[in-house]
Order: sequence, then structure tokens, then C-alpha cells
Amino acid sequence: MHSMRSPNLSFIILLFLSFHTSLLVSTHKLHPLDPLTPFELNQLQTLVKKSHPNVTFHYVGLDEPDKHEILSWMSRTRMSDFVGPRRAFVIARADSKSHEIVVDLSKKLILSDKIYYGSGYPMLNIEEQTIATELPLQYAPFKASIAKRGLKLSEIVCSAFTNGWYGAKHTKRVITILCYYLDGTINFYMRPIEGIMVTVDLDEMRIVDYRDRQIVPVPKADGTDYRESEQNPPFDTRIKSMTILQPDGPSFTIDGHRVRWANWDFHLSFDMRVGPIISLASIYDHELEKYRRVLYKGYISEMFVPYQDISEEWYYRTFLDAGEFGLGLSAMPLQPSTDCPKNAVFLDGYYTTRDGTPAKTSNVFCIFERYAGDVMWRHSEPALPGDVAEVRPDVTLVVRLVTTVGNYDYIIDWEFKQSGSIKVTASLSGILAVKATPYTHKDQLKEEESFGTLVAENTIGTRHDHFLNFYLDLDIDGEANSLTKSHLKTVRVSDDGSPRKSYWTVVEEVAKTESDAKIRVNSGSTEIIVVNPNKKTKVGNSIGYRLIPGSVAGSLLWEDDYEQIRGAFSNYHVWVTPYNKSEKYAGGLYVDQSHGDDTIAKWTLRDREIENKDIVVWYTLGVHHAPIQEDFPIMPTLSSGFELRPANFFEYNPVLKVKTPKLVKWVNCSA
Amino acid sequence: MHSMRSPNLSFIILLFLSFHTSLLVSTHKLHPLDPLTPFELNQLQTLVKKSHPNVTFHYVGLDEPDKHEILSWMSRTRMSDFVGPRRAFVIARADSKSHEIVVDLSKKLILSDKIYYGSGYPMLNIEEQTIATELPLQYAPFKASIAKRGLKLSEIVCSAFTNGWYGAKHTKRVITILCYYLDGTINFYMRPIEGIMVTVDLDEMRIVDYRDRQIVPVPKADGTDYRESEQNPPFDTRIKSMTILQPDGPSFTIDGHRVRWANWDFHLSFDMRVGPIISLASIYDHELEKYRRVLYKGYISEMFVPYQDISEEWYYRTFLDAGEFGLGLSAMPLQPSTDCPKNAVFLDGYYTTRDGTPAKTSNVFCIFERYAGDVMWRHSEPALPGDVAEVRPDVTLVVRLVTTVGNYDYIIDWEFKQSGSIKVTASLSGILAVKATPYTHKDQLKEEESFGTLVAENTIGTRHDHFLNFYLDLDIDGEANSLTKSHLKTVRVSDDGSPRKSYWTVVEEVAKTESDAKIRVNSGSTEIIVVNPNKKTKVGNSIGYRLIPGSVAGSLLWEDDYEQIRGAFSNYHVWVTPYNKSEKYAGGLYVDQSHGDDTIAKWTLRDREIENKDIVVWYTLGVHHAPIQEDFPIMPTLSSGFELRPANFFEYNPVLKVKTPKLVKWVNCSA
Repeated sequence: MHSMRSPNLSFIILLFLSFHTSLLVSTHKLHPLDPLTPFELNQLQTLVKKSHPNVTFHYVGLDEPDKHEILSWMSRTRMSDFVGPRRAFVIARADSKSHEIVVDLSKKLILSDKIYYGSGYPMLNIEEQTIATELPLQYAPFKASIAKRGLKLSEIVCSAFTNGWYGAKHTKRVITILCYYLDGTINFYMRPIEGIMVTVDLDEMRIVDYRDRQIVPVPKADGTDYRESEQNPPFDTRIKSMTILQPDGPSFTIDGHRVRWANWDFHLSFDMRVGPIISLASIYDHELEKYRRVLYKGYISEMFVPYQDISEEWYYRTFLDAGEFGLGLSAMPLQPSTDCPKNAVFLDGYYTTRDGTPAKTSNVFCIFERYAGDVMWRHSEPALPGDVAEVRPDVTLVVRLVTTVGNYDYIIDWEFKQSGSIKVTASLSGILAVKATPYTHKDQLKEEESFGTLVAENTIGTRHDHFLNFYLDLDIDGEANSLTKSHLKTVRVSDDGSPRKSYWTVVEEVAKTESDAKIRVNSGSTEIIVVNPNKKTKVGNSIGYRLIPGSVAGSLLWEDDYEQIRGAFSNYHVWVTPYNKSEKYAGGLYVDQSHGDDTIAKWTLRDREIENKDIVVWYTLGVHHAPIQEDFPIMPTLSSGFELRPANFFEYNPVLKVKTPKLVKWVNCSA
Repeated sequence: MHSMRSPNLSFIILLFLSFHTSLLVSTHKLHPLDPLTPFELNQLQTLVKKSHPNVTFHYVGLDEPDKHEILSWMSRTRMSDFVGPRRAFVIARADSKSHEIVVDLSKKLILSDKIYYGSGYPMLNIEEQTIATELPLQYAPFKASIAKRGLKLSEIVCSAFTNGWYGAKHTKRVITILCYYLDGTINFYMRPIEGIMVTVDLDEMRIVDYRDRQIVPVPKADGTDYRESEQNPPFDTRIKSMTILQPDGPSFTIDGHRVRWANWDFHLSFDMRVGPIISLASIYDHELEKYRRVLYKGYISEMFVPYQDISEEWYYRTFLDAGEFGLGLSAMPLQPSTDCPKNAVFLDGYYTTRDGTPAKTSNVFCIFERYAGDVMWRHSEPALPGDVAEVRPDVTLVVRLVTTVGNYDYIIDWEFKQSGSIKVTASLSGILAVKATPYTHKDQLKEEESFGTLVAENTIGTRHDHFLNFYLDLDIDGEANSLTKSHLKTVRVSDDGSPRKSYWTVVEEVAKTESDAKIRVNSGSTEIIVVNPNKKTKVGNSIGYRLIPGSVAGSLLWEDDYEQIRGAFSNYHVWVTPYNKSEKYAGGLYVDQSHGDDTIAKWTLRDREIENKDIVVWYTLGVHHAPIQEDFPIMPTLSSGFELRPANFFEYNPVLKVKTPKLVKWVNCSA
């Protein structure tokens, strides 16, 4: 929801190492979807700064080849060199204007440079947030406010909040700075200095508005620190040691950014805006003896986190985290053995700092094989002699990234199953956004003023939602696909001969245009299936993949409310659009203070045809969060997700022939 | 959905071992909720057979002490001997009548013996199904039917199906026998001999009706066998070895049937009808330095599996698996290293055969610590110097049972989390119930006659549902609880001062009577919370546990349809009743051919008060299943579940003080 960085940017490693650059200087061996290398980022910085000396960088990512080029390259041979341009897409600010710059890295030239005149601003970079959050500490009225409260300036930490948009015709590129108190805890989010709002103009980098509306006691530090070193007994019994062992190593291979495991083959990229991008996911069909395409591309296109407090200091907190703060930019180095199991392999990610210098986030991804003790399939057959019981344990492959957007931590897992499923799980943890209150007991609170739960003395956990929109460019066995709504419909039996009065059947409805494919998932009686209408199984079923939603929470805000206009993708759980390279983000390209004129709700008003086309499914996973005391001072993980599951994609169970894993006797292990 | 056993009952071990009986002769050390021991079952058999020499046994289970006795025992000291009677409840058939017999095992006498005159019949025992399924093989008209089809009698396997109830005033205790073909496969379920129905009177144990309505080609054996030994290349790449190691052993202890792990303490029992029973689940609160009660008792009270084919041979297949076939009776010995991970500990279960002799199912439960690579909670704090990143991996405890009710395998997991959650997962695998058809391509099928998907040539996977009703006697910090519906309600902002037009708030509604607590979960905007209205946290929140449903599928059948009257619990996802020891099964005590007069839908018509009472929550987890080709010839697991999660039960995050597990370096391991 909001982000902030201290000036101690120790995790940003400047890349001047000749070792790295020499390794990466040749682009020959690059996969066309590989993220920009540090060398390329350096190249690009030089080129852009030549034409704009005072530029600041806000987004740099791969401007990938057109889909038809990629597909044609794939169809030739999956391992050949890609012959095509290597381009970057840059959003930068110069002279208080947003520039969209396309750079050809092969030719070392700027292909285009245009100014964006529409509503909204680009992603905030980390450095401007850091600078802005330090401005109040030098600002006399702020210092006076702190003194008036009897607080120590040295214990203040401030954080940057985007402002949303509430109908203003003209906007400037401003953010709100809110401040917190340390003084005995590192969990400053639990100690908001309520009532003070500092507005900073990011282009001018100065305070342009300052309000100190009210003094509210700062909640106490006791019990807020979550570090192990700060806990006092009694402790929980420590669980005995437990680990996963793979003596022969993992079963996956990573070749650059291409990952192969069991029957899966896919490409994993890192993007500073959306975080992980899964591309070209194909599954090997042993019957057909070939890889078959499933997912051309999948990533989190936007995240919408509206808080449900309408007071002056809170109403605007309706964040679009991906487009405002960057899920990749906010990704954290994963902690070995805790964030990921011991058998995990880690990958780094690169992004661009304010001045265009490349920076690395180490261990931004982990990849591991997961065995949770689950069963892939089984059957016991007591009806036959010989104790028939066939069981296959379920081992899957997980790609993980953790993005910490300010207080909240999102653990994003893309999980590949041998059975053909792709399961995506978002697990939420981190720190609540809380509001300070003078009250210490629920009885003192007026419901219409609290907007949340008293999670501790003087501490209200404010209600909010998380809506994660997933861009899913499914290419089920080819590009031309259709969305089928399979309605499970009750039939009243008219046949006098049957003792039954009712049964359900399946009525298939093919979504012909975009308006047919706006779906709210709530009754569980409609199956959403993406089919390839041009291919059938041997017995004549449409080849498809089913989207199995894991949550039915949808936005409860009015559709004409400003924040909901911007986060309009949460009006429905499912939308479908015809593939359009320019439609990448369900909330639009520029979301900070946007007017919501570039959202999926607007695009789909054209009601384009989507039947038997190259289509994109946009699925929104939603979680309502009415905080509870267990969320204080740090939240136990809450998980939600969805599954893409083959549905008549294979002729029969694709894991029928998976062999039982070899039993291994472990001897002589010592700890 | 249906069950059948061959005469090879090799897994039933008759218990005449003096070793066992001497160990178990004393009941002093028994927990009052321990299941009946083999010694007690033998005792009981002798007593019952003395008064009814020709009795057949259909259910034997613990007749547990009244709840107030258990609670008073618990409150005294958790480890003291229970002084109270040890009783068994028996349902037996004698002279074609159902007897309910209560036996006092301490006093070695029958306390009561009454005949049940209501509708419906008791659970089928395994032996009578076995005998009944062999009758057709000796029956001339059946042999003629088989010969007419050109099939080999030696390759026939038959299975017992309950008939449901379709309005008949008078019923006899009959079942339908349907037969299948082996001849080249062990997966006979994929080879139905369609068109033949044999009706067997179980009391008279003879065929009372026989129909051979039509000849349909038996689907071919090719591709149906699921055994590893029968597969041909190409095979999938085998995943490399992977295992879980716990060098210091598990962190749980099992003392008889009492399990203690981390902060949890609960009792696990086995019942031949419902399978696993979790009782007296309490969690240790380190702040209060005491165990606090959560779940007095939890188990699957009934399972409803209606098929959606109204043809003569199929319409009645609307099974109530728990009450008809027994989830415990159908439980399978778990396969080490595949059904459960290598670190699992196994427990046996005992049930009663037709003549009252105790039998054992080895390894009926497994208990293991699960580490799936998940995170319990985490936060990185880039705003502060020092690379703050605290992460706690999530280790949980799983209790598993697999019940194979005929063709279907249900993997039932009760998972305990250190954070206080109890998560229940039902994973469905096994074999589809299919219908033979002359057709080999979808184009030949008429939708109104197929009732399913052509999953292979001549093979229709018939549509059906699975509704699992969970009995959840939650005692949140004491017996007197209330059900709160927390409605997330949109508020239109009338305040001209706020730029917001809407937000959502929480409106709590306490269910006062049973009719208030009939809930269909579909919009995701109502939180279902069981609270203890007599206890508050320090800041004044009601202490509670939230029920988080994992599925929104509800029954699509008309409420006045016969099978739906019997499976009426599936009308709603949630029901609440005041605790009543006699209300154990949502579908009633006698469900085979019952008229649905003892269901939760009938009990709750009294509309009893449920506010601040000892209440029971009945939750139905539902899955619609429209089969797909991937389900052929054996189904990849499909999981669904729900979570009971503390909500203001603790003053703060109960796993805040959980220490990071010790990092263990493994050396010298050899495979």
C-alpha cells in the first residue's frame, strides 16, 4: 500500500564489475523475453541521459518483441538464437513531464521519445520517496508539531503515501508524507503520529502543504517489536529440526531465465513494476510427444488496496501498489531457510534507480520443489485380492517472490504441478496499517468514527481490501481461444417415468464479446473454462483449461466512487479482452493520481469480439480484511489463490504414468 | 458413494491375542473418549450375542459420557483418571429389526435394548455387502445375461449400491447390485455392465428383483489400469529423491489417543461411521499460562453424493456415504511414504464385523509435521538500517485418514497450526463412476441423455456433487457461545466534507435462533464468527473463532426432491443448533432409505435459541464435479477445505514469540 526507504540503500549494489558486464556483453544467447541486463541498463542510462541530462527514471523494462515474432521463433526451434531487436521501454521524468522512451539496445539509439499528456503519473522511484520522507525532519512547523507532542525528532520515521484522485481537474505530482515513532521498537507502523499530514511536490521536491489537525496519543511501543531478539519469555516450545533433503539435487534446470522441470518448460522474468513474469509456459504431452502451450504470459497486472476510513487523514489511502510503488521495486531479498526451504535455488533481479544506475535485489526469486505430504492421485481396491493400493505423492515446483510494499508483505507463489495445473497463491503478512486513537477500550469507540478494530490500546486496525489482478494470456494449445461459461443449471424433471424431480446439467455459453465475459464469481455454479475451439480431443471434447477461483470477495465500493473508478478491475472477478500488446495493466499505465481513464473497465466498453481470438483473461483475487487482535503487531499469513487446471486438455490423466518415487533410506546423517 | 469388499478380508485381523487383551483389560488408564478397545468389542459381542444369538452388527461405537461429566473431569485435572461408566452404543439387526443397544462395559451388562420403528436402516456392514455382491454369480438369469453379452463370468465383479428413497410408504432392507468387468484391468469401475440391475434383500439375503433392460457395449480395458506395473512407455521423467528429515524425531507426543504438539492438545478417536473424531482441542495461551478450549468435538457428520443422471439405472444413486457405508469402515490402511510422508507416525483403528468380532485397520491414521515451505509470518523493513527481515517458517501438524467409499478416495486432513488455526482439507481422488454408452464421439451424444462427459470411448463420466458436512462443536473459551454474522456493508457517504462516496463497515448480527443461522456462503461479504459473548479481550473485543469457508458450491437440486430431503444439510453451508447429544448426524442416524425425517433441516424447524448457548456449527463443504478426460482412468486430486481461525481469541499474534528453527547442517548423509 505504501512504500518508503531509508537512505541506507545497502541492498542496492552498483554494477561496475567488469566480470558481470563481460559475461553479459553479448546478447546472442539471450532469450527474447529475458529482462534487461545490468549492462543493458547501463547502456540505456547513458543514451537517455545524453538527450535528457536531468532525467529521473521511473520505470525501465523490456520492450519485448511482438507476440507473432516470439511465436514464430518458438515454432522454429525452442533453442535457436533469437534474431531480432533488443529494446527497452522507459518512463522517465524530465522538466516535470513524463516521457515514454523506447531504446534500441542493439543499435544503441533512442527509437522514440514522446511526452505523455494524459492523467496520472508514473511509478515512484525509491530515492525520491527517501528524499521526500526526510523533508519534514528539516521543516520548522513539523519540528514544532513534534515538540508540542513531546516526541523526540530523532525517533521519527516518515513514509510516502500516494494521494489517489478525488475529482480535481488539475493535479501536480504530489504525495503525502505521514510519520511514525520508533523510540523502543522497530515496528514504527504501530506508532503512527496521527493528525499530521505533509504534502510534498515530487517534481519540486519541497513541502507544499502542511496540516496538524489534531493530537492523538501515540500508541505505546510495548509489545510491538517482532524481532526474536526482543521477545521475553514465556516462549513457545521450539519445534524440533526438520528439513528437506534432495541428495541428488533438484529435478529442475535453470538455463538463464528458462526453467524446466518434470513436464514443464517456462520462462521467468523480473520486472520492477509487476515483479515475476511467467512466460511461454508449455507442458510436455507424452502421448503427442510434444510440448503444448498453456500460458503465453502471466503476472500481477495491478493491486488495489482501498482503506475503508473516510476521515481527512485516511480517505485517500486507496493504493494501486503495482503502478504506484512497483511490486518488483518493492521485492525483498529472500531469506534462505525461512522465506524458502533449504532445497531452494535463488535468482537475482535488476532494476533502475532514480538516476538510471542499475541496482540488484539479491535472491529476489526462489525456486524449489515442494513436497507437502500431499497425494497426486490414489486408489485402494479392497474388492480385489492382493491389497491393491496405488498412491503417487505430489511434488510440485514453486517460484516465489516476496514484495514488501511498505507495511504489507505479499508472498507470491506460482506453483506448477505435474498434473498440468498452475496454482497461484498470494499469502499476506507484514504489518497492519493502524490509526492512533485516544481510546483503550472498545466501549469508548464510536463505530462511525473508528473504521476498524481496536487491536491494542490506542490502536485501530483499519479495514481494507486487497485485490490482486492477474494478467493471464492463456494460449491453450494455440492462440485462438474462447471463454466458456459452463453454467450448472438445475433441470426440473418433467418425465413422469422418473422418480427424480430435479438434476443439474451443464449449459455452455461462449462469451462472444467483452461484455459477455465480465463475471462475478459467487454461486460456484458457473465453471470458467478457456477452450481452444479449433481443437478437440479424440472423443470430441473442446481442449481447455479451467480457472478455479479461490476467493469470492469482490469490491464493496460504489462503482462511481473515485477510487473505485481507478481500481475498476475489482468490479468483476473475471474480464476477457482480445490480446492487445498495449493493454498491460488493468488499472492503466499511469496510475498515481490517474483519473481512471485507462482501466480495463474503459477498454472493454468497446465490447470487442473475443470468440476464437487470441484472448487475455484478467482474474482478480480479492481479500477483505477486517483486522483482528491476532494481526497485532505482525500478521499471521493469510493465503488465497486460484488454479488453472487442464480440462479435456489431455486425452487422459497426464500423471497416470508418473512413477512412484524411489524410496531412499537415509543413513549416517549427522546434524 | 458405494462400497464392496471381496471375500479376501485379509486386512481384518481377529484379535484373540492374550498380549493385547492383557494390556487393555484395565480401563483405568483410558481417556473417557477413547474408542472401544478390541477387548471391549469382544466383551460387547459376547453380551449382545447372549441376548440375540442371530444378531448382525451394523454399528458399534463409544457411548461417551455426558458432556458435563467430561468437562468437569477436564476442569479437575487434565491427567487424572476418569471415574465414570464405560459404555458402548450398538446398532444391530435381529429378526429383521434394528436394535439400539447400550452396553455398560464396566458392569458387563446391557443397559437398554430398544427396537427402532422409524424410517431408514442402519449402516451396511462389509460382510453383507460381500455376500450380496456374490449372489448374481450364482443366479441363472444373471448368468444368461452375461452369456448373452459374450462376457466371461469369471471376470465379473459386483458392487453394492444403496437405493435412496423415492416416496415408497413401505420399504424393505434392499440394495442394488451392479456389476463390472475385469478382463485385462483391475479398474473394473471403468467397465460397467450397463443395463443390469439386481435387487437383493439384505435381511433375507436373496435376489428379489432382476432387470436386464438393455445391452450397452462394455468400455474397453485398454488404458484403464492405473498400476505402475501395467504402464507402457513413454514415462514421465522421474522426480529425483526428496525426503523430510527430523533427526531429533517428531515434536509431537501421542499418549494413547491424546496428541500434544507445540501449543495444541487434542484427542483423536476412530469411529466406524464417521472416521476421525477430534475432541477436546485446546490451545495453550502463553500470556494466560493455561490451555484454552477451542473445539469440543469435530468430525464429518455425513457426506452426500448425488449423481445427476435420472435414467432408470442411475437416478437413485444419491449416496449418504457416512451413514450408509461408514467412513471409518471404508478407511484404508495408509501406505507409508506415499499416502503420508516419511516422517509420519501411524495409528490403527478397530471396528466390528458382521458377527461382532473386532477387526483392525492398520495404519488408519497418520500424524505428521508438515513443512511445505510456507511462511507463518514475515516482514522486511527496508526503511530501517540493518537489513531487518524477520521470517518464521510455518510447520503444522496433520492428522490424516483416507476413506475409499467404493470408487472414490477421500483424503481427510485435520491440520493444526501454531497460530491457532484448525484447517480441514478434503482431497478427492480415486475412480469416477462412469456409464457405458454405445457412442465413441461427443457428436453422437444427445445432451439430454448423457448426463455427463464422454471421458473416453464408450465411457461417460456422470456429473455429481460431494457435500461433506462437518460437525463442529466449538467451545470457544467455554461452552456458551454465539454465532455472529459480520456483514461487510457498503455505506454511502452523506458527509459533504469527505471526498469519498462510499466505504464498507462491519455490521454484526448475532444469530438468536436456528433460523437466523442458516447461511449460504456466496458473496464473501459475511464473516461467520463463533464468539464467546461472556468473555472479552482486554480492549473489549469478543473472543472468537472465525469459520473461513473454502468453497461456495451448494446443492442445485430442488429442496422437495426426495434425495435432497434426505441430504437436506446441503441446502445451506452453515447451520447452528444448540448442543444436543442425540443430534450427531446431519442426515440422521438411519440414512439408508430414510425418509429424511431425522435431518438437521427437520431439527431446526423448532427454531431453538442459540444465543449464548452451547452451540454446534454444521458446515458443509461442497464440490460440483462435471468430469473431464483428465479424470480418466483415475482422478488427479482435487482439494477443498475450510479454516477455523482465531479472531480476537488471543490478545495478540500467538506466534509472535515462536523462535526461528535452528539451522541444521546435514552432513554425511548417504542414500
